[in-house]
Amino acid sequence: MNFTLKVLGTASALPIIDRYPSAQVLDVRGRLFLIDAGEGVQVQMRRAGVSFLKVEAIFLSHIHGDHVFGIFGLLSTMAMLGRTGKLEIFAPRAFGPVLKFFMSYFGEGLNYEIEHHPLLMKEPEKVYECKNLEVSAFPLNHKIDCFGFLFRETEPQLNVTKFEIAARGLSLAEIATAKRGEDIIREDGTVIPCAAVTYKPYEPRSYAYCSDTAPFPELSEWVNGVDLLYHEATYPEEMADKAAQRFHSTAIQAARCALESGAKRLLIGHYSSKYPDLSIFLEEARTVFAETELANDLQVIDIPLKKL
Amino acid sequence: MNFTLKVLGTASALPIIDRYPSAQVLDVRGRLFLIDAGEGVQVQMRRAGVSFLKVEAIFLSHIHGDHVFGIFGLLSTMAMLGRTGKLEIFAPRAFGPVLKFFMSYFGEGLNYEIEHHPLLMKEPEKVYECKNLEVSAFPLNHKIDCFGFLFRETEPQLNVTKFEIAARGLSLAEIATAKRGEDIIREDGTVIPCAAVTYKPYEPRSYAYCSDTAPFPELSEWVNGVDLLYHEATYPEEMADKAAQRFHSTAIQAARCALESGAKRLLIGHYSSKYPDLSIFLEEARTVFAETELANDLQVIDIPLKKL
Repeated sequence: MNFTLKVLGTASALPIIDRYPSAQVLDVRGRLFLIDAGEGVQVQMRRAGVSFLKVEAIFLSHIHGDHVFGIFGLLSTMAMLGRTGKLEIFAPRAFGPVLKFFMSYFGEGLNYEIEHHPLLMKEPEKVYECKNLEVSAFPLNHKIDCFGFLFRETEPQLNVTKFEIAARGLSLAEIATAKRGEDIIREDGTVIPCAAVTYKPYEPRSYAYCSDTAPFPELSEWVNGVDLLYHEATYPEEMADKAAQRFHSTAIQAARCALESGAKRLLIGHYSSKYPDLSIFLEEARTVFAETELANDLQVIDIPLKKL
Repeated sequence: MNFTLKVLGTASALPIIDRYPSAQVLDVRGRLFLIDAGEGVQVQMRRAGVSFLKVEAIFLSHIHGDHVFGIFGLLSTMAMLGRTGKLEIFAPRAFGPVLKFFMSYFGEGLNYEIEHHPLLMKEPEKVYECKNLEVSAFPLNHKIDCFGFLFRETEPQLNVTKFEIAARGLSLAEIATAKRGEDIIREDGTVIPCAAVTYKPYEPRSYAYCSDTAPFPELSEWVNGVDLLYHEATYPEEMADKAAQRFHSTAIQAARCALESGAKRLLIGHYSSKYPDLSIFLEEARTVFAETELANDLQVIDIPLKKL
């Protein structure tokens, strides 16, 4: 029942020695989702112990090199390792020619299907669902088409308390009715309100990925109440002008988004290579949002199940 | 006056944690030449202290991902760092569409010219020359068009010994004649043979890069007498069948090429990911050619000037 983020890369565009460019894996109860694929993603997956064959879908925020140049090696390696399962890739329209190029010149021997779902939405839209999980995508505010992703567990089925089953002598049919969220109506006309005998076993968990983006007002609504918010923070405040000009955010802007959205925790990353010491990012963000953490390569963040 | 090889990556196609795929830099008296560009090459260049802007030319052996997927990030980074100097890329014809793709979708903001020189030769041919250096390319024996490269210093100008200048009272004009390699003929008809008063100040140095290839008889002639031969050795002898089937070489085959070519030293690499312990490669190669070394990431091999 895990819900675990594995951070693979936290650098921005210019290469640095000790950080890879953007890439993350979200593991939801053993289902693996790759988010962005900067150069070297496959080596970082090896380091993080992520199976190449178990990745079900890839979500690419935008088609800038530092978020996508690792896809070629990754797709090739999946082929060499004998992947046969279909791979779904959710990515902006601009990924179309990238995939076509790859398939034309490096796709020989690929024994699995790749389906590109172009992201075109102007507001949040569900793009993927599987048991217990839904993923929606939403536009960000970057120089080119760019999208964020919200991974959210679906509402769990209600449980009926053992005490109520015994006390009220609930039949199997009545239990099933209550689990569906419906009130129980007995033959004699008695109504047992669903709420009186059931409880939600846990709170659905959620993770939002927002990179790259300048701030914009709708974003905090779109990621409202998320358990963990990853928000890029390319620059500290002294570079706010450059951030605006390049459609990026400062650490404080990321923190404001977290605060306004009511996120539980904030993870910042995508640091400019000009700052080998990241403490300025953390200090600035925490002036606005205390529950901020710096993202680091190979960091593992588990969001535990909140039993109710 | 250095002639230095910096090995950046030594793995073959499947990603492993502690080795990058193929890439090397040859530094000839401060002129930098990149040979192959596997994924992550730009980070390895950073680690090795190689300037992105000083690379004069890139030589790509063939268009398989593990030799070329790092080119996209590298070309982008050169642009971000403000490169303006022309970059020449010597690569098989198949690099044409790769470059075209890159320029179409990631070439925005590129302020330097990239010139692709397609390699088409059937036997060794000079492709590049600059002061003190010539580079020739020659076909290898791989599944797709693949080329090796021979970097060789040009013959140095002859020196005239101080002793002979004094003893024979050579004039400046006579010294210049001898330096050109011509005999000195004096007005009285006396002939002073060039060889009697001159010496070659040093022996030109050379490096050959041969990856990926199955063995073939001409290769040892084409790299005859090279100071340092890099030859792929993807498999040990127990995998000789697989090597042949995949148009690769075993360590022993690489060593035979070194022996037959009269190379001074052999460097092997491009190891199959199945062998975390490389001692088998070294042991096998040394049964044929004692001066074999294992290539390692970030290894630096200097070929000292041999003064005569």
